[in-house]
Amino acid sequence: MSVVRFTYTGIRVTNLKRSLDFYQKVLEMKVILRGKTERRGVYVHLKSPNSPQRLELNWYPVGNRYCTKYTKGEELDHLAFWVRDVHSEFDSLVRRGAEPAIAPFREGAYELAFLKDPDGIWIELLGKFRASKKKRQS
Amino acid sequence: MSVVRFTYTGIRVTNLKRSLDFYQKVLEMKVILRGKTERRGVYVHLKSPNSPQRLELNWYPVGNRYCTKYTKGEELDHLAFWVRDVHSEFDSLVRRGAEPAIAPFREGAYELAFLKDPDGIWIELLGKFRASKKKRQS
Repeated sequence: MSVVRFTYTGIRVTNLKRSLDFYQKVLEMKVILRGKTERRGVYVHLKSPNSPQRLELNWYPVGNRYCTKYTKGEELDHLAFWVRDVHSEFDSLVRRGAEPAIAPFREGAYELAFLKDPDGIWIELLGKFRASKKKRQS
Repeated sequence: MSVVRFTYTGIRVTNLKRSLDFYQKVLEMKVILRGKTERRGVYVHLKSPNSPQRLELNWYPVGNRYCTKYTKGEELDHLAFWVRDVHSEFDSLVRRGAEPAIAPFREGAYELAFLKDPDGIWIELLGKFRASKKKRQS
């Protein structure tokens, strides 16, 4: 029996309030847990309604041993969010303050688009290619 | 009603076979989905038995527009795995090839330890502090 269980993804944020605003107000996630680590670090767990996937925001104050220089890397490819209509959701999220990265495009049976979170993490919007969209484009 | 739903975390891997070996053989995850993107990229979805959390491995060949220089950054703080006994699981995973990062330590009611995946991503082992451990240490 497996005793190792993937439980959540923890991203590091450089400004907790700004990131909480983004994940709560723009991406409509809900805070389900909040705590402090012993070195004044803060963690906050978020979930989307109707999804069991759990995201942790980690914030470290200056002086905390994890508060290393924040640099952008390649290891976190993206966080994926399923939406009903990629085009309209992309427009709506950008209006609400998300930074656009790649405008909606089709890939087989799906549509994809990319936004960025406040620290530059790529947020993928993913949904089924919609026949109604085809009509609008023709 | 929310229409944006967090669906999975996608990490980038530089050697797909090596990372699949690690997440399947060491961390005991199961492949549930595998596909190709239009530019010869490969994605593989994995889950732990008994957990709904979904991890995507993304691999891009040279020439793919996403195959940028791989650099380590700070945005992905860690991937967290719940285990029953942090001490014994840490030892077991290291014996099976995981690179140790921080040996088990206590934080309040929990024990934590950190390993690294083949690309250097921090893997957190998290579990309840076990009374039996107390006895062993005293």
